[in-house]
Amino acid sequence: MRIDQIAAGMTAEFSKTVTEADVVMFAGVTGDFNPAHLDAVAAEKGPFGGRIAHGMLSASFISTVLAMRLPGPGTIYLSQSLKFLRPVRIGDTVTARVEVLEMMAAKRRVRLATWVENQTGEKVVDGEALVMVPGQDRQ
Amino acid sequence: MRIDQIAAGMTAEFSKTVTEADVVMFAGVTGDFNPAHLDAVAAEKGPFGGRIAHGMLSASFISTVLAMRLPGPGTIYLSQSLKFLRPVRIGDTVTARVEVLEMMAAKRRVRLATWVENQTGEKVVDGEALVMVPGQDRQ
Amino acid sequence: MRIDQIAAGMTAEFSKTVTEADVVMFAGVTGDFNPAHLDAVAAEKGPFGGRIAHGMLSASFISTVLAMRLPGPGTIYLSQSLKFLRPVRIGDTVTARVEVLEMMAAKRRVRLATWVENQTGEKVVDGEALVMVPGQDRQ
Amino acid sequence: MRIDQIAAGMTAEFSKTVTEADVVMFAGVTGDFNPAHLDAVAAEKGPFGGRIAHGMLSASFISTVLAMRLPGPGTIYLSQSLKFLRPVRIGDTVTARVEVLEMMAAKRRVRLATWVENQTGEKVVDGEALVMVPGQDRQ
Repeated sequence: MRIDQIAAGMTAEFSKTVTEADVVMFAGVTGDFNPAHLDAVAAEKGPFGGRIAHGMLSASFISTVLAMRLPGPGTIYLSQSLKFLRPVRIGDTVTARVEVLEMMAAKRRVRLATWVENQTGEKVVDGEALVMVPGQDRQ
Repeated sequence: MRIDQIAAGMTAEFSKTVTEADVVMFAGVTGDFNPAHLDAVAAEKGPFGGRIAHGMLSASFISTVLAMRLPGPGTIYLSQSLKFLRPVRIGDTVTARVEVLEMMAAKRRVRLATWVENQTGEKVVDGEALVMVPGQDRQ
Repeated sequence: MRIDQIAAGMTAEFSKTVTEADVVMFAGVTGDFNPAHLDAVAAEKGPFGGRIAHGMLSASFISTVLAMRLPGPGTIYLSQSLKFLRPVRIGDTVTARVEVLEMMAAKRRVRLATWVENQTGEKVVDGEALVMVPGQDRQ
Repeated sequence: MRIDQIAAGMTAEFSKTVTEADVVMFAGVTGDFNPAHLDAVAAEKGPFGGRIAHGMLSASFISTVLAMRLPGPGTIYLSQSLKFLRPVRIGDTVTARVEVLEMMAAKRRVRLATWVENQTGEKVVDGEALVMVPGQDRQ
């Protein structure tokens, strides 16, 4: 969307079940082989009693909402704050949500509340994003 | 590492060339199919003159350093701030670095400066992390 | 094949171009993020003057010939020796070859010479395999 | 590590749960589509009563320990012997271990015992590796 199509209060979301394959591939791309994610035996003895997904995997779904839905394709990511509130387990279905908080039209910037919930509605990640949206001459 | 093995000023890093395969797989796991990352034709007309990697992919290498090196296995991620300063192009080699800023021994928490550089030493991502480290009774 | 269909001197092969994506995915599955494979900047300063594929990736193509062609589906891998003779670079096309050296019909075992060549015919991996083949009552 | 930092008796390890995603991706990269690994129906009727991981996948975790931990980054793989002793099933958590057996300082070579265990401590792969380590002028 262009800056003049966006208004405070607008929301968007993206949901996905976090599978074992997602965790394996995320580890494979990032190199983060923390046993909490990839070693079922060690993870069972750990603080969460089993394997959990990478926090940055859940956080990345925020990027997905921003890039795919609101503001959508062409969005340039400027900053993101993240609090990791609860673990996401393999098999959990998470929903990343964004809500427009503030428009800075002159600079084509948008500030958004961003968070990720699990299937029971608990926040697992919370934060804020600042993005720049395409100019009017762009798609 | 345990909290008593960590001191302000300690550093660690992780380097990786960001390939087309990484970008494709990161998109596949996260669902972020922003044309800036996956559509060479659209990206060429975009603000960066070609495809760039997901900002969250570069940011995730920070998680890799924290989980694999400093503080290392067992680390629990509490929060992360991220500023996306420059694009990472396919073929760039990035290095994620962390430096311990502050110890909060009573709560076993560590605050770290975290950033990612490209092969020419320019910062592409900057921010801070807060993590909790395993207790003395853990590995 | 069944043991009575195999004879000393029989050969089989499997060829594949080793791409950057193969190396990224092999690292992702195995956790072997040796900079020689994944960090173009570090690898350029290393002994091979650039990134090379994992030796075990090339060696795994031997397993592919054994399992897919000779003796083929149902083969049980008993042992493998491997000498890593030359680096395989990203973009090289390698051919894994096996040749039956000896039949041990009573135990349904087959000993094979196994090696991998690059596109110029140089051996990159050399070794021997011992496998067990399905009984006559099996497919 | 440099050759003068390594001594006989030193050990290192790497653990990972072998998931269905690992087996699928390993097959995809290597082309080893043995039904024992990828065809649940055929594998159930086979000698192991279900799908098993590729032997070379388990063996590759030895490469991971050598490259990532001992001797670590910069290690050059010279040879590896492998005996496949027991099947690894999808869901097993395996630990690859290496122990330095012998130093050949003049040639910067190290001989190591190498094996992989499952979560019950049974050896699934056994063998020996010969590697060359970086010179003192290298990292």
